[in-house]
Amino acid sequence: MPRFKLTIEYDGTPYSGWQRQKTQPSVQQTLEDAIFRMTGETLTLQAAGRTDAGVHALGQVAHIDLTREWDPFQVREGLNHLMRPNPVGIIAAERVDETFEARFSATARHYEYRILNRRTPAILERNHVWHVHKPLNAEIMDQAAQLILGHHDFTTFRSSECQSKSPMKTLDVLHARREDDHIVINASARSFLHHQVRSMVGCLKLVGEGKWTPADFRAALDARDRSACRAMAPSAGLYLTQVDY
Amino acid sequence: MPRFKLTIEYDGTPYSGWQRQKTQPSVQQTLEDAIFRMTGETLTLQAAGRTDAGVHALGQVAHIDLTREWDPFQVREGLNHLMRPNPVGIIAAERVDETFEARFSATARHYEYRILNRRTPAILERNHVWHVHKPLNAEIMDQAAQLILGHHDFTTFRSSECQSKSPMKTLDVLHARREDDHIVINASARSFLHHQVRSMVGCLKLVGEGKWTPADFRAALDARDRSACRAMAPSAGLYLTQVDY
Repeated sequence: MPRFKLTIEYDGTPYSGWQRQKTQPSVQQTLEDAIFRMTGETLTLQAAGRTDAGVHALGQVAHIDLTREWDPFQVREGLNHLMRPNPVGIIAAERVDETFEARFSATARHYEYRILNRRTPAILERNHVWHVHKPLNAEIMDQAAQLILGHHDFTTFRSSECQSKSPMKTLDVLHARREDDHIVINASARSFLHHQVRSMVGCLKLVGEGKWTPADFRAALDARDRSACRAMAPSAGLYLTQVDY
Repeated sequence: MPRFKLTIEYDGTPYSGWQRQKTQPSVQQTLEDAIFRMTGETLTLQAAGRTDAGVHALGQVAHIDLTREWDPFQVREGLNHLMRPNPVGIIAAERVDETFEARFSATARHYEYRILNRRTPAILERNHVWHVHKPLNAEIMDQAAQLILGHHDFTTFRSSECQSKSPMKTLDVLHARREDDHIVINASARSFLHHQVRSMVGCLKLVGEGKWTPADFRAALDARDRSACRAMAPSAGLYLTQVDY
């Protein structure tokens, strides 16, 4: 059956997350409903990253198998039309061969975390940033971030409900910088543990406000103990920006 | 009485505009209500720019006279607390002398207009951009923009309901550029006519999609005739970004 790769943007605010739930709206259900209305086919989608409630995506990826050859342009336009006014959109639809798996073929996942660092609450960016009113030092946050790059046991930065078999992951990028009133944190890896980015960002915020030193941040990793993670960033500031294949 | 300058951010989406209306929510009313709750004083605010329904602000300015000396920090924090969860925030509160007038002392007003130029509808930026799905040529839009800088009769780009005595204005900046999927247009002048920015942007879009040449855009100005304005951009993409004094 013809396989299509979908690149998806969504506003996670009204959703219980990517994954279909019995009683709450999900991104997956919004997409699957639109696919059913367009093609009559009942599919179960797998995404590259199962984002949590309130987490956004600029470049989530899923694949679908349809029983006939559709014009990829029509797939994108048709789904976008049928999903209105839900805040989910297909950025790109491409024909791929059957070896392509949105989840298992991914070679890198890129996340961005956005902190609004000012006294005034988020107004135009409400639900799209983490508002931190205490001044943060982005340079020292970035110094700390560099200390945990590489292959490690990330148990400290992993949800107790994480279903991954191993806590070993390789963190390729963790970079914090200031952009005017914002602190922007980028994280890249082949894959992440559940809550890993939000846990790392929560602890980097402790470094940024001077409660932790960069050495404390590294010590938290080395503890390999979830209780060493003393803060977790809220979902609203997190974006799945890109998946590489 | 001590006078304070307020710099204000708001999301214009839920409002009928800056100005107080009898039956619909306005930014002015949200602010005046918070001031009353904080100080017990009933004030009527004047803003540097009376934005329309759906227009946003990153740096709107108003001034207030209070009967006692307040700490400007407390003014900002108190109003921000009392305005929650309305999407209006005080970015800065400063003590100014009584010659300062938010509206009449302004020497320049700066607006930004944001177009999302891609096939996929606006998702994360819904209500905050104008979605134009046909490809726009930002370079030729900018060439056209340069043709109307300076002191002119802007009748073409003026609402028929504009209350300004004269259609003569001096346009100092009108600049269009592409930023990835966006076309960003900046406009600066001492003051603008009603709907002037949205009228200019609407016609620049005709240039960007090839329906008009830059010469057609200039000819529209020279017509000094409102009916020569063949398109007006929607309010959602417009931001009052800064007011100079």
